[in-house]
Amino acid sequence: MREALAKAAFELFLERGFERTTVDDIVARAGVGRRSFFRYFPSKEDVVFPDHEGCLAEMTRYLEASAAGGAPEDPVDTVCDAARIVMRMYAAKPDFSVQRYRLTREVPGLRTYELSVVRRYERTLANHLRAHYAGSAGVGNGGGNGDGALRAEVIASAVVAAHNNALRSWLRSGGEGDAEAAVDHALGLVRDVWGGASSGRAPAVAAHAHAHVGVDGEGDEVVIMVARKGTPVWRVVQGIESALGES
Amino acid sequence: MREALAKAAFELFLERGFERTTVDDIVARAGVGRRSFFRYFPSKEDVVFPDHEGCLAEMTRYLEASAAGGAPEDPVDTVCDAARIVMRMYAAKPDFSVQRYRLTREVPGLRTYELSVVRRYERTLANHLRAHYAGSAGVGNGGGNGDGALRAEVIASAVVAAHNNALRSWLRSGGEGDAEAAVDHALGLVRDVWGGASSGRAPAVAAHAHAHVGVDGEGDEVVIMVARKGTPVWRVVQGIESALGES
Repeated sequence: MREALAKAAFELFLERGFERTTVDDIVARAGVGRRSFFRYFPSKEDVVFPDHEGCLAEMTRYLEASAAGGAPEDPVDTVCDAARIVMRMYAAKPDFSVQRYRLTREVPGLRTYELSVVRRYERTLANHLRAHYAGSAGVGNGGGNGDGALRAEVIASAVVAAHNNALRSWLRSGGEGDAEAAVDHALGLVRDVWGGASSGRAPAVAAHAHAHVGVDGEGDEVVIMVARKGTPVWRVVQGIESALGES
Repeated sequence: MREALAKAAFELFLERGFERTTVDDIVARAGVGRRSFFRYFPSKEDVVFPDHEGCLAEMTRYLEASAAGGAPEDPVDTVCDAARIVMRMYAAKPDFSVQRYRLTREVPGLRTYELSVVRRYERTLANHLRAHYAGSAGVGNGGGNGDGALRAEVIASAVVAAHNNALRSWLRSGGEGDAEAAVDHALGLVRDVWGGASSGRAPAVAAHAHAHVGVDGEGDEVVIMVARKGTPVWRVVQGIESALGES
């Protein structure tokens, strides 16, 4: 029933446009009553995105399971993996996803609906990160309520932006190529910069020192940094930031 | 006229709620005709955010002037400065901003309107970064069309998320404290990680080497990295990433 309604709605949107299709048109095409429609979808917009609620629920379960597991997993890896659930939902129905993408570009109401959905994904990921950073406040990862929440939101936004950049490219290409590989590549940019926050190994950056070293005859001042292998990049960044920043 | 309409609208929204206020109510309170309203505002939602169009225009001018200047400025600094224009718009009218924030929390239609505005700021910033990264493709900053666009979107999202995190805290506090300082602090997190991309100094990371060094009696393998002072952090990250990542 749910699938049949979504299918009928989509056919009509493509035939006569989103705005000119009514809920009555959709139920007539699907051969069901008007009340059935509203049992499944709160509005006409929701038919266009029938899988987002399920996807959000799956993402939430995934993050809860990960939090409950108590594994010393990098929370940035966890939210990247959670974001992939969305990509897989799109990739599971490439034709539908591509058609919807084109429709969404043309209908302002659908674009704002999509923005709301994106924001909900972003919040779900940010909540997970916030809980993690709050729990490890004071261990030098920007925890503490103020910056933990800030870091959580910034990373969640970056993850969603990277994911959506790759997903949009794939959709624009008409669903050609490997969506999973594209999203992995994009998320790699975020992981490289923000990942590794919960590696239990410390101290990450063992030492850094300043020295004047002649390179190419110039008396440039350099920073020498010594870090244990496998150190999360962000930790190294934190360690050398102050050193590099001094003038 | 414009201000008078916005003021009247706002009074009514606070008195009887957004949904229960009509455009007719607003023009009656302001003592003007209905057509005047639509001359200034496309919809009731727009009255709530009367300054965003002007702010977007100012941001665009700022970015264009910066691009035209051709200065070897860090584009991440430029977009952070551009984002501050939004914060200053809010901070210029603290009472109005705080009231609007509370109203927006309660009215779903206003929240989605706000999401659209935020997305427009994000795009404006991303376009600036994209143009910059396209122009400097191949110099090792993730330029090249594919990753340049990706990096541009990720950084723009991170800038907006950091800006909004600080702005929201300020609004939630009822407009207490220094909005500018809070936003600066939040943007600092993004600058630290992503900033410095166009510093002309090269090579940033002069060398890195692996060594086995005994620390506390352990034979830990460490990475030694030598970087010139003032090196952008992201460049150092790029330089050490591969070294740290090897296992």
